[in-house]
Amino acid sequence: MNKTRLEAFSDGVIAVIITIMVLELKVPHGDELASLAPLVPVFLSYVLSFIYAGIYWSNHHHLFHAVHHVNGRILWANLHLLFWLSLVPFTTGWVNESHFTAIPVAAYGVVLLFSGLAFVILTRVLVVHHGRQSLLAKSIRGDRKGKISVAMYAVAIPLSFVNVWIACAIYAAVAAMWIVPDPRIENAAS
Amino acid sequence: MNKTRLEAFSDGVIAVIITIMVLELKVPHGDELASLAPLVPVFLSYVLSFIYAGIYWSNHHHLFHAVHHVNGRILWANLHLLFWLSLVPFTTGWVNESHFTAIPVAAYGVVLLFSGLAFVILTRVLVVHHGRQSLLAKSIRGDRKGKISVAMYAVAIPLSFVNVWIACAIYAAVAAMWIVPDPRIENAAS
Amino acid sequence: MNKTRLEAFSDGVIAVIITIMVLELKVPHGDELASLAPLVPVFLSYVLSFIYAGIYWSNHHHLFHAVHHVNGRILWANLHLLFWLSLVPFTTGWVNESHFTAIPVAAYGVVLLFSGLAFVILTRVLVVHHGRQSLLAKSIRGDRKGKISVAMYAVAIPLSFVNVWIACAIYAAVAAMWIVPDPRIENAAS
Amino acid sequence: MNKTRLEAFSDGVIAVIITIMVLELKVPHGDELASLAPLVPVFLSYVLSFIYAGIYWSNHHHLFHAVHHVNGRILWANLHLLFWLSLVPFTTGWVNESHFTAIPVAAYGVVLLFSGLAFVILTRVLVVHHGRQSLLAKSIRGDRKGKISVAMYAVAIPLSFVNVWIACAIYAAVAAMWIVPDPRIENAAS
Repeated sequence: MNKTRLEAFSDGVIAVIITIMVLELKVPHGDELASLAPLVPVFLSYVLSFIYAGIYWSNHHHLFHAVHHVNGRILWANLHLLFWLSLVPFTTGWVNESHFTAIPVAAYGVVLLFSGLAFVILTRVLVVHHGRQSLLAKSIRGDRKGKISVAMYAVAIPLSFVNVWIACAIYAAVAAMWIVPDPRIENAAS
Repeated sequence: MNKTRLEAFSDGVIAVIITIMVLELKVPHGDELASLAPLVPVFLSYVLSFIYAGIYWSNHHHLFHAVHHVNGRILWANLHLLFWLSLVPFTTGWVNESHFTAIPVAAYGVVLLFSGLAFVILTRVLVVHHGRQSLLAKSIRGDRKGKISVAMYAVAIPLSFVNVWIACAIYAAVAAMWIVPDPRIENAAS
Repeated sequence: MNKTRLEAFSDGVIAVIITIMVLELKVPHGDELASLAPLVPVFLSYVLSFIYAGIYWSNHHHLFHAVHHVNGRILWANLHLLFWLSLVPFTTGWVNESHFTAIPVAAYGVVLLFSGLAFVILTRVLVVHHGRQSLLAKSIRGDRKGKISVAMYAVAIPLSFVNVWIACAIYAAVAAMWIVPDPRIENAAS
Repeated sequence: MNKTRLEAFSDGVIAVIITIMVLELKVPHGDELASLAPLVPVFLSYVLSFIYAGIYWSNHHHLFHAVHHVNGRILWANLHLLFWLSLVPFTTGWVNESHFTAIPVAAYGVVLLFSGLAFVILTRVLVVHHGRQSLLAKSIRGDRKGKISVAMYAVAIPLSFVNVWIACAIYAAVAAMWIVPDPRIENAAS
């Protein structure tokens, strides 16, 4: 099986996830600048979730760049990743509805944590399928960034009960770390 | 006519179906863990419907892997399948709204039954077009899994009037049976 | 410019249009079979609109099969078609909300009429670009079906003020005429 | 990295943006022609936003026609453009809810302004990557239209506080300027 449809389907799901989140941005009732004020945190959480969706799309793009063929196991590892990503609009909405209280902010981190784990699993399944000597396996050896992200989410989740802004800062820090594209695959593939 | 657009269109429709179902996960009003409790069955039905959408996408992917060309009849057999799949978010929503009562759970099964039949029809139309001696025809000969699924739905629907959880267990069992990708096509194509 | 992205974009828009219409199917409040009764006309109008979206996608597929290259004018003729198609969920919803009264049923026909005209225009623009001696031009010479459809809509719209069911029957008749794929292009292309 | 997925993802996001805006067209409660009257400005703003989405898709199509390869920086410049475009349904909705008052009309312009800037940035990043002597660089040399658009938005935004219709007229004028496809790239590429 070739990878084209897996890529196209993932692109479709992530594209819809990104645009569904815009629906969270409810049109304000007033027509003054002040009526935008309550939207500011909503907007910021939209920006963060947009960036996360962008990171996963970008990393997915990088990862599958080095993939040659897929099997049923890879299809399901990929669907598993898309499942957790599809919950991001839900937790983003809950964080906004609750005005950034502990449980929703922690739940946002839990979904990020499972998305991160799902990406690590997808990477492993791909490496097993392509062999440990493949370009793919070499280019992601160690996958340090993925593991660090998962560790940071695991730290952020309990910290959201201490102070939600610490947790949010950690989520933003992980995002910042990922925006720089992974030079390992880019180098190996060039 | 080539199959590329049929695949791309199907990918698009299934991707939107999957993400529309997330909209069913209404953000809870409270910000405590307890406020997630009423969402648990909703979440589980979302998971099941997500898996069903994933199964159909995955089987569609497997099936069209061995397809070489399409005609108008195949386009419509495929649209017919997409029609029934597009009703899954509706029946999922009804099951959730009604808190798992008999008629909605049976309706969920009816949509699965017709989706299953639509997949069987699509398979037949493809076999007729490619010829009984084609790789496609050989690889799906008998299509036992498809027929068993349809039979299990047909059993589950009346049983939902006895006990909805029996019906739900059968729906889950069919899903479990399908998550394992179809080795017949994979073997024939390799 | 090649036609790949125009096809992919059109597939995406039509896929979203089809699935947005499912959102019109509001989950009933009761959990009895009788609570589905008020949904029957809604369901039928959803089926008709789904078929129309399928027809346009299928005809688009057939038409672009014979297309070799596109230009800016073709992009906009295609966007013009997508614009009218994107209004189908709106008129479908209005017909349902109003329980099939004259003006909404006529409006449904107006959107179909403009969609039909947009398809005729797209066909013309493509023929001009490919030349009157091209395979494309020969295969759609006359485009009788397209013109008959437009004429039938033009008849149905005023008739919806006499009896809405006559108009609906004409809309369904046009759909039935189109479900049979266009043998002209299929023959010419084979 | 090849450009296929970047194009497919952008097509998906813009397709969803266009169709989400249709959801703004709320079905009227009455069933008379008069009940459409309050929808007229909503409809016109939908038409304008549809045209803008079409312009960006069309220009994106033209621009990437001459692109050969992409890198992480280009992925993010593209996501940045999609981010601003994804806000168009929000500002379109606000303009409609407020019945065309100053702040929402200005906000509509701000989103257009940032979309325009994002397109300019994307163009620059592509030129840097392909080299100043590339076909791409030559074909968009100066990018006068892009700069004029940004300047016109910058003028329109303050003018919306004088008279919203002046601002709207400028938005429409920029759209009209862009509907004509860019002959520079088309010529260079032919």
